[in-house]
Amino acid sequence: KASVGLTEDQKEFQKVALDFAAKEMAPNMAEWDEKEIFPVETMRKAAQLGFGGIYVKPDVGGSGLSRLDTSIIFEALSTGCTSTTAYMSIHNMCVWMIDTFGNEEQRRRFCPSLCSMEKFASYCLTEPGSGSDAASLLTSAQRKGDTYVLNGSKAFISGGGDTDVYVVMCRTGGPGPKGISCLVLEKGMPGLSFGKKEKKVGWNSQPTRAVIFEDCVVPVGNRLGAEGQGFNIAMQGLNGGRINIASCSLGAAHASVVLAQEHLSVRKQFGEPLANNQYLQFRLAEMATRLVAARLMVRNAARALQDGREDAAVLCSMAKLFATDECFGICNQALQMHGGYGYLKDYAVQQFVRDIRVHQILEGTNEVMRMIVARSLLQG
Amino acid sequence: KASVGLTEDQKEFQKVALDFAAKEMAPNMAEWDEKEIFPVETMRKAAQLGFGGIYVKPDVGGSGLSRLDTSIIFEALSTGCTSTTAYMSIHNMCVWMIDTFGNEEQRRRFCPSLCSMEKFASYCLTEPGSGSDAASLLTSAQRKGDTYVLNGSKAFISGGGDTDVYVVMCRTGGPGPKGISCLVLEKGMPGLSFGKKEKKVGWNSQPTRAVIFEDCVVPVGNRLGAEGQGFNIAMQGLNGGRINIASCSLGAAHASVVLAQEHLSVRKQFGEPLANNQYLQFRLAEMATRLVAARLMVRNAARALQDGREDAAVLCSMAKLFATDECFGICNQALQMHGGYGYLKDYAVQQFVRDIRVHQILEGTNEVMRMIVARSLLQG
Amino acid sequence: KASVGLTEDQKEFQKVALDFAAKEMAPNMAEWDEKEIFPVETMRKAAQLGFGGIYVKPDVGGSGLSRLDTSIIFEALSTGCTSTTAYMSIHNMCVWMIDTFGNEEQRRRFCPSLCSMEKFASYCLTEPGSGSDAASLLTSAQRKGDTYVLNGSKAFISGGGDTDVYVVMCRTGGPGPKGISCLVLEKGMPGLSFGKKEKKVGWNSQPTRAVIFEDCVVPVGNRLGAEGQGFNIAMQGLNGGRINIASCSLGAAHASVVLAQEHLSVRKQFGEPLANNQYLQFRLAEMATRLVAARLMVRNAARALQDGREDAAVLCSMAKLFATDECFGICNQALQMHGGYGYLKDYAVQQFVRDIRVHQILEGTNEVMRMIVARSLLQG
Amino acid sequence: KASVGLTEDQKEFQKVALDFAAKEMAPNMAEWDEKEIFPVETMRKAAQLGFGGIYVKPDVGGSGLSRLDTSIIFEALSTGCTSTTAYMSIHNMCVWMIDTFGNEEQRRRFCPSLCSMEKFASYCLTEPGSGSDAASLLTSAQRKGDTYVLNGSKAFISGGGDTDVYVVMCRTGGPGPKGISCLVLEKGMPGLSFGKKEKKVGWNSQPTRAVIFEDCVVPVGNRLGAEGQGFNIAMQGLNGGRINIASCSLGAAHASVVLAQEHLSVRKQFGEPLANNQYLQFRLAEMATRLVAARLMVRNAARALQDGREDAAVLCSMAKLFATDECFGICNQALQMHGGYGYLKDYAVQQFVRDIRVHQILEGTNEVMRMIVARSLLQG
Repeated sequence: KASVGLTEDQKEFQKVALDFAAKEMAPNMAEWDEKEIFPVETMRKAAQLGFGGIYVKPDVGGSGLSRLDTSIIFEALSTGCTSTTAYMSIHNMCVWMIDTFGNEEQRRRFCPSLCSMEKFASYCLTEPGSGSDAASLLTSAQRKGDTYVLNGSKAFISGGGDTDVYVVMCRTGGPGPKGISCLVLEKGMPGLSFGKKEKKVGWNSQPTRAVIFEDCVVPVGNRLGAEGQGFNIAMQGLNGGRINIASCSLGAAHASVVLAQEHLSVRKQFGEPLANNQYLQFRLAEMATRLVAARLMVRNAARALQDGREDAAVLCSMAKLFATDECFGICNQALQMHGGYGYLKDYAVQQFVRDIRVHQILEGTNEVMRMIVARSLLQG
Repeated sequence: KASVGLTEDQKEFQKVALDFAAKEMAPNMAEWDEKEIFPVETMRKAAQLGFGGIYVKPDVGGSGLSRLDTSIIFEALSTGCTSTTAYMSIHNMCVWMIDTFGNEEQRRRFCPSLCSMEKFASYCLTEPGSGSDAASLLTSAQRKGDTYVLNGSKAFISGGGDTDVYVVMCRTGGPGPKGISCLVLEKGMPGLSFGKKEKKVGWNSQPTRAVIFEDCVVPVGNRLGAEGQGFNIAMQGLNGGRINIASCSLGAAHASVVLAQEHLSVRKQFGEPLANNQYLQFRLAEMATRLVAARLMVRNAARALQDGREDAAVLCSMAKLFATDECFGICNQALQMHGGYGYLKDYAVQQFVRDIRVHQILEGTNEVMRMIVARSLLQG
Repeated sequence: KASVGLTEDQKEFQKVALDFAAKEMAPNMAEWDEKEIFPVETMRKAAQLGFGGIYVKPDVGGSGLSRLDTSIIFEALSTGCTSTTAYMSIHNMCVWMIDTFGNEEQRRRFCPSLCSMEKFASYCLTEPGSGSDAASLLTSAQRKGDTYVLNGSKAFISGGGDTDVYVVMCRTGGPGPKGISCLVLEKGMPGLSFGKKEKKVGWNSQPTRAVIFEDCVVPVGNRLGAEGQGFNIAMQGLNGGRINIASCSLGAAHASVVLAQEHLSVRKQFGEPLANNQYLQFRLAEMATRLVAARLMVRNAARALQDGREDAAVLCSMAKLFATDECFGICNQALQMHGGYGYLKDYAVQQFVRDIRVHQILEGTNEVMRMIVARSLLQG
Repeated sequence: KASVGLTEDQKEFQKVALDFAAKEMAPNMAEWDEKEIFPVETMRKAAQLGFGGIYVKPDVGGSGLSRLDTSIIFEALSTGCTSTTAYMSIHNMCVWMIDTFGNEEQRRRFCPSLCSMEKFASYCLTEPGSGSDAASLLTSAQRKGDTYVLNGSKAFISGGGDTDVYVVMCRTGGPGPKGISCLVLEKGMPGLSFGKKEKKVGWNSQPTRAVIFEDCVVPVGNRLGAEGQGFNIAMQGLNGGRINIASCSLGAAHASVVLAQEHLSVRKQFGEPLANNQYLQFRLAEMATRLVAARLMVRNAARALQDGREDAAVLCSMAKLFATDECFGICNQALQMHGGYGYLKDYAVQQFVRDIRVHQILEGTNEVMRMIVARSLLQG
């Protein structure tokens, strides 16, 4: 059903991604979760299929696909492991930012090894004191000759400590969004260190750490775009990031509906399959209906972003709000349909619930999404 | 926003329909409601714009447009009066049934005057004892020579008594769906009479009556399709009917969001516009988001039906379920945002709430929609 | 079930009220609604049972019962006609205000004929420009010798124009709540007039009109309490008013659950009663569960108010918010369970839905209830 | 607020339990969760306060308190660790069953060491093939002289493997509820073994294992009540068990509301505390309102059970359904209010969400609760 209305090409790489999810990811997702493994080799295999730089231009190793194509792929991969796919989506966003806002030298320096996932990237915007209010970030980058000297810290960084390249928003000018620039840092730079690995409800196949800058020296040549352009770069990245995360939610929900369907058909109570209970049938119908609506929202926003439509940012926010809220509800209801089994780590459905929960919070909380949508309605 | 992604043609007739709604319908919707006026002349004006047989073939007076086009038009008209548009959508469904399943003689006899809305049509499926379980209908049509003799009655017939043409499902064979045939009756046929005009919560611009058959004689030449094909015809009509009604819900919700937006911007409390309240802003954002999702569901189903896709019936059911539920919630929340004014008949929002309420019930209740969707999930 | 945990006395007058509702009100509620009849004689009969001044002291004709007793009675009466009972609850609130804040002369002058419902009372707080922000009201009362001269107007006044006594909040001092006083006006006073009768979604058995003051002269002796005490009087009245309205919602929901239960048991589809559908069974269970929770909230708040507990105002707001929201949901779901019949005025369930809808709006909108509760949580 | 309307005695032991939760449990709950520690010594300290046999008669070491008292205590303890308290509530249920249905010899043999929590108990009803349909259980107990020989297995047993006493429902007769008897087993009996320790989403401070019987020999003297009485005993235990679990949900929700309140007050964004956001204020108000409603439902059911009222079982089911659903929603919303911090194991709110999730599933799923309530409505 997720393939309806797609082009032949899209069906083709959707199939590739679904196969990869089923064979390379799903069998390992529980172990990655339990042992908190960052599955580097598996992701490199995915990169060989073109999933390391999906919407990055081909001349630097990217696949050159559209936002809609990207959404289809992340949805498919996410059925195999939502946490890993979500990290991959952040990685893709970072590569896209370098590809789009970097100069030729930067593109050629960073993109190829990121597209192949020889190296991994992290997106560094949020700070301990600035989450929803990103424009108030405090990390300072003082210009000294041909370098910037960075001081400050970033919080909740996906991949932080285990990744190689950090796309960092920092303040090179005065307060507010216009004083922000975007620098690309590399692991090993002096003054760059990491906090303890966070323990989380889910998203355990990707490490999360604070990223700390103490007189960290970064060449000016590592700046993406002009000084003061950083906030704009960050926000443009996030439009795609929101669709990507929402796509991961779709995959988790899709997988959970399938698991619920199977469980209801197999599990017997009162002498017949649970699937014979009308209440459960109708709830399943609601879940499937809401999944279809969520998918349409995400794909519609992806098309708008691809086409550079004026309302793209609002549609991306709507899609993120709607899809991550609804898909959490779907996964959670699928868990309920499993009865006691849904609470056991032997069953995948609970991992989808845990992994997906954070999607309502990150890349802008769903409260911030409402704010963005409301603003467009009341100013328009 | 409702025009995004449409072709130039679609935008053009969307504009025509919105203008018609604003000028010819909206100023009168309160009066039609209060005085229970069936606005025959206004509908005929709409028919001059091609809205009497939108998805009917041009050779018999139809506009030859697609299901998606139809949805766009009904959504637009519904912003001017949901009740009237909903009747028009039923009328369109009837003409389409004659156009599609009738022979040439029938098409030429009935369609032109229906497309021009010189004559009006009613759809007669539901009976006092068979609502959701339509296939159990009891109205009998006994073959006598070149005629059928009908006995029985139909309930909740939109337009009943005021319309000219009745597309009637009746039993010519044994029990179950395969014993059902479809006859076209005309007002004035002996033995055809009508119950009292029902008093309803909304949908007051269209009369609702029982339709009663007492030894009512109908020529065999008035049968659409073959004997036993009636249930199939009825269900195929309903697929479109569900999209149409869902489209009317979209229009009501769209209009209600606009009304709420205006009210919040104008109405002051505590020294500032209500629109400055964050809670109301966020609720408005949710309403707009859900409206976009509902619209995508309806248009997606319309495309599927147009393309004759295998999953079209399920997608139509999903769209009807989702859009009519969500849009009622949107209108009801818009009423709440009006405060006490929302409860007064001087304000249009309450009429949208009252009119739209029945969309969750008719053309198959939303419980039946869940049943259809569930069946497809658990048999697939 | 509504009688569980009550004293013998409470069960006794609950029974009296239920009987009165069943015999004197329910058979007429549809007609009162359709013809917009203010059922004066029926209310006087109710007053003979002590329902005209339930929580008013006996020495002036009241029944001297508690807030909990009052809630029980209004819930019971509301099963017979919610709109009429809601008006009676406002009348009771007014008499209580005179009884509580009036001096002996005022109590003896006004209360007896109000308790017997020889005369009827209206509560006049809301103005066209001040709904939720009641403290900003503009109606001015200028002191001239032994009189006040009133200018301004009140909006949405229940009973307005048909009632005899008006408890009016007006400004005798500076801006804000401390400049407000409470005057008792009587119909026929020069300068007191009324707007047109409003057309409403429900609450049709009670007239609603604007109340207009044009140099309206009121003796100082008609002031309740001291100058500047008016806002406090108004708010104290509303605490009880909120429980009363919430109690009316309980009655509407209770009646709707019973109607749905009956309909499900009687109506057959697919060869068996609708009640055999598990989905409908489970929804009915949810409705009943939520009704029990709403009733507990209302009775708990009534006890707190009776006992003068510090948290009474917050509990009254919580009860009003919870009960009116949940009971609307219950009634609306009961309507859905009736299928097409639920939309017809021949069936009572739709009237409960229409009548109860305004309970989420008046006596402080449910948004204001949230504000009151939030304030107590974040200041506490 | 949770203390309103309680007797002085109740306030006293509520305070004792809250203190114990704050000092002995809350500081350790994260560690117990992470390391999956069954906190035996802490529970024994709680038992010294009388919490090992709260509603067990004093002559065998119990505290002799009422069901309402019990609910108050479990709610209070649960604010310190929901998982541990939930196990304690199951233990209490088991002791109560022995106290109530056991003969004097059995009461004196088992209860004292259980009340002091020198020994711990497990409740063994659910089987791999019979969850909601408990009456179909297959574990057989064949009478051989003065013993029963048990074969079969139980699933999802709280405490299983780490506890000393097992209250086991098994089949001594024919199929259906009347063939079931209740035996008390002790760890170490030959033929009694345990499955692997389950890995779970939450409830990690209590081990969960399968309990396996292979020709396990149990003296007839270990049977509670008569042969065939087992299902009745099990169900009577569950009425209390449902209130107990619902009480644990109240505690988790209460603690989560407090955590959210604190976080909103401390955390700043856009230059001011999150608590200044109206949307969050209003959501917090809704959470508090729903918590009060849930608490009233639980306490009302506890009183009904204590008083032996006819409708007690239905009220217990309603309370369990309502409180566990609403409290999960409250905790989950509190997590959302924490933003990214809510997803970290350093913050307690996520543990409440994980622990409480299973309450909607066990002691009868919430779907089974709906079934019980529906049955009472449609047969009544």
